[in-house]
This record gives sequence, C-alpha cells and structure tokens, in this order.
Amino acid sequence: MPFKLIYGVRRHTRSAKLSEGLRSTMSIAHPYLMFLGDAPDQLAAKTAQGVAQWRPEWCVGQFRLPDCNADLGLKDMSLEEAVEAGAKTLIVGVANRGGRISDEWIDVLERALQLGMDLASGLHRKLGDIPVLVASAQQHGRRLFDVRHPTQDFEVATGAKREGKRLLAVGTDCSVGKMYATLALEREMRSRGLKADFRATGQTGILIAGSGVSIDAVIADFISGAVEWLSPDNEPDHWDLIEGQGSLFHASFAGVSMGLLHGAQADALVLCHEPTRRHMRGLPHYPLPDLKLCMERNLEAAQLTNPDVAFVGIAVNTSGLGPGKGDDYLKRLSDDFGLPAVDPVRTGVAGIVDRLQAG
Amino acid sequence: MPFKLIYGVRRHTRSAKLSEGLRSTMSIAHPYLMFLGDAPDQLAAKTAQGVAQWRPEWCVGQFRLPDCNADLGLKDMSLEEAVEAGAKTLIVGVANRGGRISDEWIDVLERALQLGMDLASGLHRKLGDIPVLVASAQQHGRRLFDVRHPTQDFEVATGAKREGKRLLAVGTDCSVGKMYATLALEREMRSRGLKADFRATGQTGILIAGSGVSIDAVIADFISGAVEWLSPDNEPDHWDLIEGQGSLFHASFAGVSMGLLHGAQADALVLCHEPTRRHMRGLPHYPLPDLKLCMERNLEAAQLTNPDVAFVGIAVNTSGLGPGKGDDYLKRLSDDFGLPAVDPVRTGVAGIVDRLQAG
Repeated sequence: MPFKLIYGVRRHTRSAKLSEGLRSTMSIAHPYLMFLGDAPDQLAAKTAQGVAQWRPEWCVGQFRLPDCNADLGLKDMSLEEAVEAGAKTLIVGVANRGGRISDEWIDVLERALQLGMDLASGLHRKLGDIPVLVASAQQHGRRLFDVRHPTQDFEVATGAKREGKRLLAVGTDCSVGKMYATLALEREMRSRGLKADFRATGQTGILIAGSGVSIDAVIADFISGAVEWLSPDNEPDHWDLIEGQGSLFHASFAGVSMGLLHGAQADALVLCHEPTRRHMRGLPHYPLPDLKLCMERNLEAAQLTNPDVAFVGIAVNTSGLGPGKGDDYLKRLSDDFGLPAVDPVRTGVAGIVDRLQAG
Repeated sequence: MPFKLIYGVRRHTRSAKLSEGLRSTMSIAHPYLMFLGDAPDQLAAKTAQGVAQWRPEWCVGQFRLPDCNADLGLKDMSLEEAVEAGAKTLIVGVANRGGRISDEWIDVLERALQLGMDLASGLHRKLGDIPVLVASAQQHGRRLFDVRHPTQDFEVATGAKREGKRLLAVGTDCSVGKMYATLALEREMRSRGLKADFRATGQTGILIAGSGVSIDAVIADFISGAVEWLSPDNEPDHWDLIEGQGSLFHASFAGVSMGLLHGAQADALVLCHEPTRRHMRGLPHYPLPDLKLCMERNLEAAQLTNPDVAFVGIAVNTSGLGPGKGDDYLKRLSDDFGLPAVDPVRTGVAGIVDRLQAG
C-alpha cells in the first residue's frame, strides 16, 4: 500500500535517520473540529470530551448530526465553517453504534478530506480499512490517523539510560484516573514554568497530546521499546509525564504495565487509585491489591531500569466517597505513606509537584 | 484476502464454536520433510535441528541444496521421494542469508506445494507475503504456516481457574534452556505414563509441537489471553508443560514474561539458568539476577492467578562449567533451595518429575 497511515511524533530522537522521518509528518495537526456524529448520549462522546477538556484552545467547534445527544459546549459548525475557522483535523472522538461506521458518517468524513482536513479516530474500526476514505485521503493529500492502531516499527528496548526526567502513573487497577492525573500534573508543572510534556499511551491521550502510542496495541516484544521511543533523551530538567495503563495486579493486562515500567525508566511514580472499586475491572473474582503491596511491587519492577526511582504521590478519585470522607481518606493515605495524597479533580495535584520540586 | 494463513491447535476448548473452527484445521501435519536450503553452517539450521532432535519420528528426511553445509543426519531426499515416504509438510527450519528468500528457495517451496505438501516456516519473512506461494497454496488446497506470526484472534485473559495442571519454565534470562527443559519434562513424564503435553510459545517449539503461539508476536493486550488459549481446561491429572520466554529481569522483554506467568496460571514453576552468562542477553550493562530474588519475584507474580503455585525444580545448562564443577553447582543449588537441581542434557529431569509426582 503506497499510502501510509501514520501518527506519533517525538521531539528528540537518538538517530538522525529516525528523526528526519518523523519530525515533519507524525503529529496530528490542530486546531480540531470535534465530530460527535449521532452519539446517543454524553458518555458515547467521552473521548471527545476529554480532548475538549484538556485542549480547549485546540477545539474550534463541534459537528453534530441531527439526532446527536452529546454536547461539548463548543460552537456547532458545518465542515465549511470549521475550515474557515482554521480547523486542520476532524477528530472522531465518539463511540459508534454497534461497532460499524454508517454511510452517513462516511459521507461526512469524506467531505472533510475533500475540504482539506485530516482525520483522526479513536475507534476500533480503522478509517484506513475504509477504501473510499483511503482513496479520498490519497487524492487530496490528507492523512488518516487511527490512534488505536500503531503503525510505526519500534525497536526492542535497550534499557540504556536516557537524559531527562520521567514520571509514570501506575495504578491499583485499570481506569483509576492515570491519564487525568498525568494531564493535571502537566498543567500544574507548566503553570510553574517547569518543562513538562504529557506522553500518551492510550487513544484519548493521543488525541489530547497530538501524538503517542496505543501501548496495549503494540506487538508484545516491543512494549518497552515503544515506551523508550515515546520518552526519548531530553534536557536534564525536562519531565516526561507518561500515561500508565492497566496494573501489575490486573490478570489480563499486567504484561503491558510491566513493559511500561521498564521502558519508562521512571524517576518518579504516582500511584492512582479508586477506593470504592469492589473488584478489578472486568474480573469480578479478583479483589483490588493492598496499596502498600501495590507500591512495593511497582517500585521493585521499576528499579530494574532505574534504581533511583521513588514514589512522589498518590492520586485518588474520591468522587465516590463524598468530600468529607474523601478528605479523611487522603489525609490517612498521606500519613500512612509519607507522601502527598491528592484528588486531581477536587484538590489538584500541587502537592505532588511540590514534592517533585523539593526532590 | 480469502485465503487464510493459520496455525495452532487445541485439544480442549471452552466454547463449542471455537472448538469446531480449530479442531480440523489448525495443526501442522506430520511427517515432516526438513528443508535446510543452502545453510552456511549447522548453526543456521538450529530450528530444524531442534525439530529433528525432539520429533525424530516425525522427520522422514532432509532436503538440501547443493551448497548446504548443515546436516541433520536424516536421509537426503528429493521432494518426490519425501511425498512417496508420506511427508505432509515441508519445514523451513533454517535461517536464510541476509533475511531474503532466494528465487531458488521459492522454486523448491512452490514445487512442494504442487506435490501436495503444506509449508511451515520459522522465518521472520512470511511465506504468506510471497504472492507466488499464496497463489500456489490456494490453487492446490495447501496451507502456509508462518509460525512466528500468530494470525488467530485471542480473547483478553479472564484469569478464571481452569481444570488440569500446568507447569511453566521461567528464567534468569532469555535463551537459558526453557524449551529444552520443558520438552525433557514432557519426554520423562510420558515415559512414566503421565499425561503431559508440551505447549509451545516460540517458533522452534511450535514446529516441534505442531501447534502453539509465538507469544512475543501477540498484541500486548492479549499476551495472557493467548496463554489461556494455549493451555485450556483439561483432565484433572493432565499437565500442560508451557515453554517460557524471556525473564522478569530482562529490560526488553519482561512484559511478555509477566503476561505468560499470569496466563499460565501455573501450579508448578521451574527456574532455568545458565551460570556462565556474564550479562543479560543483548544488554551488556545488565547483570543477571540473583537466583533467590528471581524465584521470589516469579512466585509473587504467579500467585496472582494461582495462589498455590510453587517451584518444583531448577534446570541449569552446566555445559560451560564442565562435569565436575557442574555437579558441584547443581548440588549446591539443590541444598540452598531444597529443590531438585538438574541439567536436562547431562543429568535428565527425573528429579523434577519425582518431585511433581510426590507433590
């Protein structure tokens, strides 16, 4: 296939060859027009909502079909109006009904290509598997980004020490706020004038960062290598804030989490947790791990590639506890572990950044 | 593509649907004709040698091109003679020069298809990417098995308890004899009338078993799920002997090893080790782990999906020590850990099977 589906960008590369190939072509161009299609409810547009929340300055508007029940609070625009407003990429950040992409959607996507926009999608189904879109992209010199499906080739991890600092969010479970915590850290660190870049390892994060790797979709041999690629050498005082995935205690996905730990070569770890979760996500017969044990195991694994790694905080989604109990819970964690314990939504992550700056 | 490249078989499946789809089509048919091509030396034919060593009864002969410098000690045969002798599959168990498959090779492979043989290859380069072979296979109703490249879809691991017993070989490093130890255990257990099946997770193992999964080539999310598929429910007194890969202490591949540990749901672990190794394979700056620590970490990880897991032995490649020192080394390990310590080549693995039977 002469037409290549690509995404992902890195600012610094170890080899000039790689650098040349990637620098010019690999990032998703913004501003974005957010496509919500015929989303049955707000939840179906969760990915788009994440992008609008964390990159409001990139989102010029939203495009909705007549029976759409989601709303990002952005200006409704036609494709033509969006192009007029400078939109470079149409973001498909919505779950499609029944897993198929309807003809109505395809018409819109094709028109966006004709009008000069790229397409970026977080769907399982690939845009690159839809011949009419591939043909149209080729004809109009546009790009299709299927962010769930890495297309670049990665090297096997070397474990070699890289310049710069790295923080990785790890979790007691899947879906306990690792992306949110990492993005909140980026915002807080940048507001203090620190050099920090969020490094995305999942589809929503990639749309928010404009680049990244869906790490759970990489070939097993290259998990750590892909993370090394994602967080390359950098300035000594620069922080990569790497989005974690899964949990060492998740019986389905721990291989991914382990590869992330080794590839990240983390200087700092943040433990993410959701205290009202009854069992591991998707595994009703598996309880959540003890927090202390979970931290020990993550630290032990991370020490293989960075003996100086340390936890710098705990990020908890306390929304299920309510504010009073939530604060008590954070205080107890902080006392027990001698670490800042925060709720990124309610309390912000300043405590963790204070710790990073002190350390 | 209407023509599907497939491999892998399972004897027992949890769903009838899956079982029907796989039972009839997924195993590599034997007897085998071993293709050695123009192998420059014996080492280039390492994969073929493994097959001939562990499945001599499946190997009717070898086919060599004029300038071949490898020899399996099998009868040299033409393709026609091999078919006459009952060969069902031509096994490409040889490294090809410079990574490319020469026209001379392709002529032979195409002729084998025409004569009614399937092809199975352990090469990186896929037979299924060579149009003339795909067309010929389709025309003659033959199958192409690219055993390094899994083609079936796996489910995400459930971590649900399965019937039957499982043993997994783990290692201090890559290439420390995990496949050899597991195959030696299969041979010893079968000789005692025990029910045991080697479960292959690498290309040589798959050619030896006639089925399996190249686990390091699976998409990261499905590592554990693929291992659950590979070692499904079985009779209560049946042992799956699962070939391990990598090491929890290998900075490039530990994600694969972790996923294997969880998916295997092992009752028994065997630690494999090579005592003269100076550093982790491919990573000159990484020392080998302490054996005790390595065992503890493997046990801890394995306990997530099987709390009753225990080490049942240590398998050491002592060839670098010489017989005297080798025996001393095994004795010391056995005393230190209270476990049978064997060299599968020199001493056999009877000690480990004794322990399994006692346990």
